[in-house]
Amino acid sequence: MIHPAETAFIIIDMQWGFIDEASSLCIAGARASIPACATALQTARRLGMPVFHVRRAYAADGSDVEPVRVGIWLAGGRPVCAEGDNPDSVLAPPELTELSGEAIIMKPSFSAFYGTTLEADLRARGVRTVVLAGTTSPNCIRSTCYDALSRGLNVVVLEDATSSRTPEVQQANIVDMAYIGAHIMATAEFAQNGLQNVPDVAQQATEMLTTLN
Amino acid sequence: MIHPAETAFIIIDMQWGFIDEASSLCIAGARASIPACATALQTARRLGMPVFHVRRAYAADGSDVEPVRVGIWLAGGRPVCAEGDNPDSVLAPPELTELSGEAIIMKPSFSAFYGTTLEADLRARGVRTVVLAGTTSPNCIRSTCYDALSRGLNVVVLEDATSSRTPEVQQANIVDMAYIGAHIMATAEFAQNGLQNVPDVAQQATEMLTTLN
Repeated sequence: MIHPAETAFIIIDMQWGFIDEASSLCIAGARASIPACATALQTARRLGMPVFHVRRAYAADGSDVEPVRVGIWLAGGRPVCAEGDNPDSVLAPPELTELSGEAIIMKPSFSAFYGTTLEADLRARGVRTVVLAGTTSPNCIRSTCYDALSRGLNVVVLEDATSSRTPEVQQANIVDMAYIGAHIMATAEFAQNGLQNVPDVAQQATEMLTTLN
Repeated sequence: MIHPAETAFIIIDMQWGFIDEASSLCIAGARASIPACATALQTARRLGMPVFHVRRAYAADGSDVEPVRVGIWLAGGRPVCAEGDNPDSVLAPPELTELSGEAIIMKPSFSAFYGTTLEADLRARGVRTVVLAGTTSPNCIRSTCYDALSRGLNVVVLEDATSSRTPEVQQANIVDMAYIGAHIMATAEFAQNGLQNVPDVAQQATEMLTTLN
């Protein structure tokens, strides 16, 4: 049994710089996922889950842009920039704006765990399960998924509240995350049944290992 | 220009527990990649690159197995186990055995960076580029690739010296890693030309950013 209070809802990189079709860093599927993300966010709030808004904001001088991304970042006029050309690009759409008391984690790269306080924050709250939404499935969602699995957390990925550059890429990444052990769920199912049908893999593993002793 | 002395060759999880068809953790494509891995390893040695053998060995009581992997690990008789049922499963094939002086990094999960000294070891040697070989592309290779990109390193993935559970999964993961900025190369090209045609993305990024100042 997975309790909402021990489950973090983590929404990643749903900011205009990754959503707006005019941005060089736009993820083609991101805008269409806004309604599902909003439904998921409202569900998490209704269930009393701790909510984490994980976002990216590059320094205006580009010093914290991954080298592989510098070219496209410069060519696009420094999209997703905290100051300078595109300060609005770091903002979330109104449907996904944080409420007072919800955590905002600024991350310096792909995974929500890399270079952030997320792991400590989750441990402090006794979180055992994370529910992931946002973009982009092959990069930030997937890196966060694997980092969470490495830390022994249960992982739920909301399939239609995540997005990719093409439907094929989305599908391939969902398949890989399911294969390694993430629980893939539709947002409508999450809204209707919450965490009711999510297996507590971490607990099951502990029970299975007692057979060894 | 990328210098071999500043480039680490990292070979991941090429151990019998992941190669042997009788293991529950066998990666279907791993055995066929042994010759390419061996050619790549010999090339790295010939060029004078620091070599890192990154491997996994589970505790006999399963306490360090990711919860999502416990079921298959138990069902398979604790494959890839440092002691107990399958001690030989942690060994590399003879073609890929370490030489004296080469680093062995035991990792506790997917990424070679998670919970290991790898990052510190690379920094201490002035490594700016990593060349990845081994298995499995969707999990340990890809996690290591993204973690290296997050740290500003150039990443080369040797396509035929990495492997997956199906050719389709292999292809989808190579495409994603290429898309985010890893340099995908055939082992024969590496053996023939070394790092000659590998772009120094980290250096290029630094140069591009100077245009901002």
